[in-house]
Amino acid sequence: MSAQGDYLLWTREELDELRRQQGQDNAMGRSLAALEARVAASMARGIVIPGQGEAGSFEHNTHKENARVIEGAALWGRLSDNVQALAHAEELLAGYAACYRDMPYQVARNTNPPGRLFHQILNEHIWLLHASLGLALLKPSLSEARYQSLLDGLFQPMLEMFTETYRHDFDRIHNHGLWAVAAVGICAMVIESPEHLAISIDGLDGSGETGGFLAQIALLFSPQGYYVEGPYYHRFAIHPLCLFAEAIERHHPERRVLTHADGRIEKSLHVLLSTAYPDGRFPALNDASRSMDLDDEGARCAMSLLAARYEAPRELLALARQQQGCWIHANGLALLNAVQGVDTQVEATSQLFRDGPDGQSGGHAHLKRGQGLAAQHVVLTAGQHGMGHGHFDELGLSFFSRGKEVLKEYGFARWVNVETKFGGRYLKENEGYAKQSVAHNLVVVDMQSQHAANHALADERHGEISLLTGCAAGARARCDNAHDGVAMQREVLLVESRHTETPILLDVFTLTSEQPHVYDYTFHHGGHVVRWWGSEFTALDALEVMGDRHGYQHLWKQGQCRPATGHSMTWLEGDSFHSWHQITQAPAEAFQLRVGANDPDHNLRPDAKVMTRLTATSQTFYSLFESHGHFDEALEQCGGARPQVIHFRVLPSADGVTILELTFATGRLLVVLAEPARQGESLTLEAGERPLRIEQDVTLIDLPDTARVSQNT
Amino acid sequence: MSAQGDYLLWTREELDELRRQQGQDNAMGRSLAALEARVAASMARGIVIPGQGEAGSFEHNTHKENARVIEGAALWGRLSDNVQALAHAEELLAGYAACYRDMPYQVARNTNPPGRLFHQILNEHIWLLHASLGLALLKPSLSEARYQSLLDGLFQPMLEMFTETYRHDFDRIHNHGLWAVAAVGICAMVIESPEHLAISIDGLDGSGETGGFLAQIALLFSPQGYYVEGPYYHRFAIHPLCLFAEAIERHHPERRVLTHADGRIEKSLHVLLSTAYPDGRFPALNDASRSMDLDDEGARCAMSLLAARYEAPRELLALARQQQGCWIHANGLALLNAVQGVDTQVEATSQLFRDGPDGQSGGHAHLKRGQGLAAQHVVLTAGQHGMGHGHFDELGLSFFSRGKEVLKEYGFARWVNVETKFGGRYLKENEGYAKQSVAHNLVVVDMQSQHAANHALADERHGEISLLTGCAAGARARCDNAHDGVAMQREVLLVESRHTETPILLDVFTLTSEQPHVYDYTFHHGGHVVRWWGSEFTALDALEVMGDRHGYQHLWKQGQCRPATGHSMTWLEGDSFHSWHQITQAPAEAFQLRVGANDPDHNLRPDAKVMTRLTATSQTFYSLFESHGHFDEALEQCGGARPQVIHFRVLPSADGVTILELTFATGRLLVVLAEPARQGESLTLEAGERPLRIEQDVTLIDLPDTARVSQNT
Repeated sequence: MSAQGDYLLWTREELDELRRQQGQDNAMGRSLAALEARVAASMARGIVIPGQGEAGSFEHNTHKENARVIEGAALWGRLSDNVQALAHAEELLAGYAACYRDMPYQVARNTNPPGRLFHQILNEHIWLLHASLGLALLKPSLSEARYQSLLDGLFQPMLEMFTETYRHDFDRIHNHGLWAVAAVGICAMVIESPEHLAISIDGLDGSGETGGFLAQIALLFSPQGYYVEGPYYHRFAIHPLCLFAEAIERHHPERRVLTHADGRIEKSLHVLLSTAYPDGRFPALNDASRSMDLDDEGARCAMSLLAARYEAPRELLALARQQQGCWIHANGLALLNAVQGVDTQVEATSQLFRDGPDGQSGGHAHLKRGQGLAAQHVVLTAGQHGMGHGHFDELGLSFFSRGKEVLKEYGFARWVNVETKFGGRYLKENEGYAKQSVAHNLVVVDMQSQHAANHALADERHGEISLLTGCAAGARARCDNAHDGVAMQREVLLVESRHTETPILLDVFTLTSEQPHVYDYTFHHGGHVVRWWGSEFTALDALEVMGDRHGYQHLWKQGQCRPATGHSMTWLEGDSFHSWHQITQAPAEAFQLRVGANDPDHNLRPDAKVMTRLTATSQTFYSLFESHGHFDEALEQCGGARPQVIHFRVLPSADGVTILELTFATGRLLVVLAEPARQGESLTLEAGERPLRIEQDVTLIDLPDTARVSQNT
Repeated sequence: MSAQGDYLLWTREELDELRRQQGQDNAMGRSLAALEARVAASMARGIVIPGQGEAGSFEHNTHKENARVIEGAALWGRLSDNVQALAHAEELLAGYAACYRDMPYQVARNTNPPGRLFHQILNEHIWLLHASLGLALLKPSLSEARYQSLLDGLFQPMLEMFTETYRHDFDRIHNHGLWAVAAVGICAMVIESPEHLAISIDGLDGSGETGGFLAQIALLFSPQGYYVEGPYYHRFAIHPLCLFAEAIERHHPERRVLTHADGRIEKSLHVLLSTAYPDGRFPALNDASRSMDLDDEGARCAMSLLAARYEAPRELLALARQQQGCWIHANGLALLNAVQGVDTQVEATSQLFRDGPDGQSGGHAHLKRGQGLAAQHVVLTAGQHGMGHGHFDELGLSFFSRGKEVLKEYGFARWVNVETKFGGRYLKENEGYAKQSVAHNLVVVDMQSQHAANHALADERHGEISLLTGCAAGARARCDNAHDGVAMQREVLLVESRHTETPILLDVFTLTSEQPHVYDYTFHHGGHVVRWWGSEFTALDALEVMGDRHGYQHLWKQGQCRPATGHSMTWLEGDSFHSWHQITQAPAEAFQLRVGANDPDHNLRPDAKVMTRLTATSQTFYSLFESHGHFDEALEQCGGARPQVIHFRVLPSADGVTILELTFATGRLLVVLAEPARQGESLTLEAGERPLRIEQDVTLIDLPDTARVSQNT
């Protein structure tokens, strides 16, 4: 590490190669230009080291930016042989070293312990990581006295705080824990402190099994690489993971960190990138922003590490099109080379990610059809609860089609770093609405959240899920423990046929109970309701709240349709129409809802929802979602505003077999869903010439006529 | 016109030049590629001539598209010497000629008379215009028999319908009338019918003063070029105007149409293009789509004609950046050349467009500051009522800042061509809400619309307006006839100073009456309310409707603040914060509203509104709007979330003088507004060393300190 021309994550030769990308119209060229501008702006401002402030405050923002600039100016200085930039980074470090020891601890604002610069220590870990990378770049040209003063005034007291003052927290297996060990470990490599490096890799007890980087890798992700809190926190956790892994691989290859725990890092990179929607956004599972995407720094590092250190599949490389910038690192160059000439029109493939430390705690199906931005992506969730950030959303569904999330995740109730929104922290409506079952696309039982909205209880349980055979994009999920005495099953599949341009989403949600319950099937949609078909819609004269707890207290009822066994509605979002059709055995009321009741602090988005409600012991909701037509408001062009599915019908069938009949102007489609126990049996359709032998979960029968058939098994 | 190589609007030489733009990455290259694709798609479909259908239906869309393809395939055929394309255009014409005479008239759906292909004759005029341009391109290579059959079967019966059957409508001065005369005139030039050409230029009586193109030009626009119905219908009317004017200028230059009526066409082009917001969208004044923009075909033709036939100012040429495509015509090439090297960063200038046939019926102020997309644009309206499409919005305000419309026009209640929304026609909520005063950004008196919501009455009246002196972007408007016994005045200005990055909008709305009235100050904002400052906001437990008529029946009251003489609220839209501060003399209640009550057919958008209400005889609402800070949700970066204006205060002053004090962290700004009668007087501010002599409407005094001063006159 101390070799001349080696700056921990960068060598002089690599910097030479990076320099050649300056001015190029590619992700690296853009990132280099952004770096130059950022450093120039900071140099123009001069050295500003403020006191303490709320998230989003001037103080908070300035400390954050300063850490970036310490790394950035040092990197830019080395890249462009710019001594002013190097001096600027050094002066910033010196400024902090002069005051850090005397700074009091911040006031704690949440469950995280406070740091000196920030109100949660997590931010201070991030700060140390960037500052350490900056120090690595500066070190060869620092005077001995200056180097010593930086260590004494800044880096040593930070290490001391993280490993002594907060020693009890250092081994915690958590995304914050990953930042802690990466920051301490990278700092230790730079300042050559073998003791700190050892605990950051192997944990305080040196075993590598209860704390430290190796344990984090092995325990934080499922054997398949899934991160329990979901994609939003996954991309946050992967950032220090990529940096520290790269540093260890470069300087301690004997630790074989890149293949540790059966290649857990590689699997984790795969999962993170695979969870992204075709537009690059991450589905907002659990506490999550609806805007977080592949252009996040962590995701950029992830894509680069995958391209540089592993065999990256073409389907994942194609996602790099969603990244405007790039990690300024040899791995970023490797990505740039890897995507050269890669066809971005890759057919997306469905995947099931198993959850839990041993991969036995259910999982998450990501069902995909199509290519590029036009691809569809369905997420069906039946894994572990996402710990403190978990939502009560077993068997929750989200659906991306035609460039937009059609069945929407609500995400979190939080404006990160917006000081005027409760200091940028989680808002009380996050518990009150966002986490509750009714805030998701699923069936709520008795107007109560799953697991009685008890996080500890939810953490102990999980669902089960498998992909469907006979279908490129289908899954079946079960959860029998979310509500006492009610078993839930959801089968979801994308159906491609000659009848529609865009595949149709089928959703069969079955509840089984011996006691009667109130079942609320609900989903969040966007855009503007065009029309309810068939059932007459009544707008209410005064808006009433739907309930008093479990999220219902935040829902306005705007209108309703009388009880019926069929409901159908079309909405328009952007340039596309979407229609939903639903059939139930018992008549269901249908409601048009809007989020936002009991919200004096304006903490909820006024999103639109649909709910159908019925009371029954056991019941199945058969739903169908289709994307159709187009509308260009500016050009005033429109076509295909009516649903393509003319009739949606459930044909009578034996237990364990579901036969859905979809009638189009161009013919009919029968979709036969059979549970494993019924496979191997034969089915006789009146219209069919010969009995159909059921061999798999899904069988599609395309009939040219539009006349209805009956069938018997 | 019959010369070989002359195709009415195009010559062979011009087509050669256009051909050279194929494959270029510019607006013309893109339009040529789009034309080629459109023609190829139609040729692949073959000849399809359906029956009759609703707007947005397959039939309606196919007829519309066929007319475009007749012109387009003929043009593409000539451009690329493609005989198949020429044959396709000819076959389409022949197909229509074979059936047109036998087609029954459509059922009339609104006040427009029906055609055969479409339910309103307007669409049939548009159809004829495109088909005639196609015929002009085909004519030289048609056999005599084929040409005659097209005339007999299609063009003659169309002309007959327009000039005989609907003769009583032909001279109507209206945007539909422009399409009628342009279609008939262009057809007449192609088929060489001098009689039809004569009436299309000079009207049925041949005077050129009561009907026909010349009268339309002179009467449809104000002397300054303003179109009474507003920009949305202006860009629609300008399309046939550009085509017919170009055709006449080419073949009958002796008519001097381009300079007719004191250069009315040039002025009209100026006004249309000047009304567009910096992002290219037209403010949705009167009945209008919120999406219509400079990329509309009519606006493309307008920009091209201006560049080709007049001296186009740099400020308007810079707007061509908002046009993705181009008129495929020599004028389009002229535009392409004109914009080469034009700096698009042009400082926008404020303008006042006078309304009415003699320019004496009030007008519309377009106040602008800044450059490019970052420019601000305020519209203050005090002109004529927009006839049948008019809204009751005298002294209405809209405001564009930081790339978005901040104070929003609601626009129309209509989904054009969306068959499932009442056949794409105007919805009843257009009268019920969109046209009413409360749907605009202004003060509503006694919960009633202006002019008692009577169009005929409104058509007889107008407001008055002038630009403010002493300020680059300010206007004063008055209207004393909208409500009995109430005089209204509104002064609006953009204030630039060292204290804010983005200019601040000041809005002083004064109502004068001897009787007490209920005054509702209201505006539509977007985004998400961050916080009400000072006054405590109460969310309501059940939503109630605000009233029972004049648009109030469509408003939900979501929450309120107790009566106070000051209210302040911040909202976040996209990446920018906006804050509003208001002061009144009498305490006003403040309401948070949402559009959408009594809307069983889902015809209203659920937009957010703010309203402050008080009862008084005379009263002034002093409002201030500031754009501040930034938020990047994906990057989780935020700054400047709090308003920059710390205090907003009205200092005591003499009648006719208003002194507003704005206090920032960086000092104070006094804004002195003086009515003309008070100009020439002197004002002594306590803080000032010497008396201030008022010389103009607006005087800004920038004080370094933040202590308050009192003043006396």
